[in-house]
Amino acid sequence: MPIPEKGSPKPDGIWTRRVKIRFGQCDPGGNVYTPNFFDLMNSTVETWFEEVLGFDYSSFSRERNTGLGYVHASADFARPATQGDTLDIAVFVQRLGATSLDLIFPFYNNGEEILRGRMVIVATSLSDHAKIPVPDDLRAAIEAKCKELSP
Amino acid sequence: MPIPEKGSPKPDGIWTRRVKIRFGQCDPGGNVYTPNFFDLMNSTVETWFEEVLGFDYSSFSRERNTGLGYVHASADFARPATQGDTLDIAVFVQRLGATSLDLIFPFYNNGEEILRGRMVIVATSLSDHAKIPVPDDLRAAIEAKCKELSP
Amino acid sequence: MPIPEKGSPKPDGIWTRRVKIRFGQCDPGGNVYTPNFFDLMNSTVETWFEEVLGFDYSSFSRERNTGLGYVHASADFARPATQGDTLDIAVFVQRLGATSLDLIFPFYNNGEEILRGRMVIVATSLSDHAKIPVPDDLRAAIEAKCKELSP
Amino acid sequence: MPIPEKGSPKPDGIWTRRVKIRFGQCDPGGNVYTPNFFDLMNSTVETWFEEVLGFDYSSFSRERNTGLGYVHASADFARPATQGDTLDIAVFVQRLGATSLDLIFPFYNNGEEILRGRMVIVATSLSDHAKIPVPDDLRAAIEAKCKELSP
Repeated sequence: MPIPEKGSPKPDGIWTRRVKIRFGQCDPGGNVYTPNFFDLMNSTVETWFEEVLGFDYSSFSRERNTGLGYVHASADFARPATQGDTLDIAVFVQRLGATSLDLIFPFYNNGEEILRGRMVIVATSLSDHAKIPVPDDLRAAIEAKCKELSP
Repeated sequence: MPIPEKGSPKPDGIWTRRVKIRFGQCDPGGNVYTPNFFDLMNSTVETWFEEVLGFDYSSFSRERNTGLGYVHASADFARPATQGDTLDIAVFVQRLGATSLDLIFPFYNNGEEILRGRMVIVATSLSDHAKIPVPDDLRAAIEAKCKELSP
Repeated sequence: MPIPEKGSPKPDGIWTRRVKIRFGQCDPGGNVYTPNFFDLMNSTVETWFEEVLGFDYSSFSRERNTGLGYVHASADFARPATQGDTLDIAVFVQRLGATSLDLIFPFYNNGEEILRGRMVIVATSLSDHAKIPVPDDLRAAIEAKCKELSP
Repeated sequence: MPIPEKGSPKPDGIWTRRVKIRFGQCDPGGNVYTPNFFDLMNSTVETWFEEVLGFDYSSFSRERNTGLGYVHASADFARPATQGDTLDIAVFVQRLGATSLDLIFPFYNNGEEILRGRMVIVATSLSDHAKIPVPDDLRAAIEAKCKELSP
């Protein structure tokens, strides 16, 4: 499935992570505090690794000496989200490069896209922080699932 | 002063907000947790309003029924920052539109740019959340200071 | 059921909220950053209101002009929790007073108590921030469930 | 100086850390989100180490293989704090034990105590996470300063 156009409704049948927005994530305006959307993207990457790709995200740093850091993070906000809202966060692979993984995160509230985020992950060696190729098994899992998720 | 090219050293004489990075802002990799850079941009907007523009940021929501929300937030990360680092955060006005304010945030560590953020603020009425013009006195202050800061 | 002695294993059959610890909740030591345990208690109160007591937590502030603020928060930490750990957070009512609700939060990791938190909630009018009696329907629900949960 | 009675005004001449409360630290009620007070205590410990004791807090974990973890954290809240408030946070040593340091944190707003926190720090070896004696030079600095701060 191609990445949906920005602002289009949630496609049927895609994997999403469902989160309920809590008091502590909101600001004095009553809406999710902007930086917390990036926290949600970050934890959604972990969930997606586990539920879709079949990897324990923490094993990369803990057992494989591999960092998965960010070189870019962005979001465009169309509508706010507030305490008690239930959001569905999708993950689309925009590009799988030699050393990087470019992910798109549409956030849906009742099927309507309220914001679109993007995070670009780069694999690094935790020994010297140099870029390394995306690990082969991770690449294979993404390619397998991307056929499935965005064929 | 024009906005410096990405990656160029900190220009002399510009206003910056100095922050020391704390344990609680860092992640298990030992570096600032990505979403916390957006928290730093947000609090830097408040500091810049106070120290450069001469406005109490909280008065907009509290006394003037004016929301200053974000429609865009992004950052490109060149180098990490870690506990104990002292960062200097600059603010440049990229564009002052009818209803929006587009800000660029270079983060410097010892004068070297380690990341560049961007936040686009839109003024809204807190009654109906509709966009409103950037308040006249805020616009005047930005124009006056931009002459000074980025002539 | 009486409140378990501190350090005793998780009693069978009690309600708990299950959370998986994420990268962004942990500090450079690799463990959950201390303040984030209080964030977990706070969001567990919301979950407990919804799943056990049958109330929408956000309705108190939004529809009933009732604040549910904290006059006390504390925790004793026996063991750390780290990224990837799955914790079960229980809630016990230690005391239901005229205007306050005293809650105990044992956190279990694989059935072992790793920390014990406490939060004391006071009901207030959002008009003048004065203490008010715990709302009757909330009191009735707690009493009904406490018979069930801690008879 | 002995530790002031809870609720008494700020004593003259004591060291405090001054912080201005920011939008992102506040919750939908408009006040500082409870867990953020513990974040403020944590960062105040770092500031106090640097400004009063003369230690780089991060050097303990980074260079000395010494953890400074918490076994207890608590706070009693008398009044809220809100966006734009300027707070003065004091640190008093309640007890310096063989392996632990018991700290009291009165938070003042315009000289009035609005909350009182407590954190108990335990020194550990980062190799095996066993308790170790409070390092001699840290103990000496605390004893020297406590004579000065709380004689």
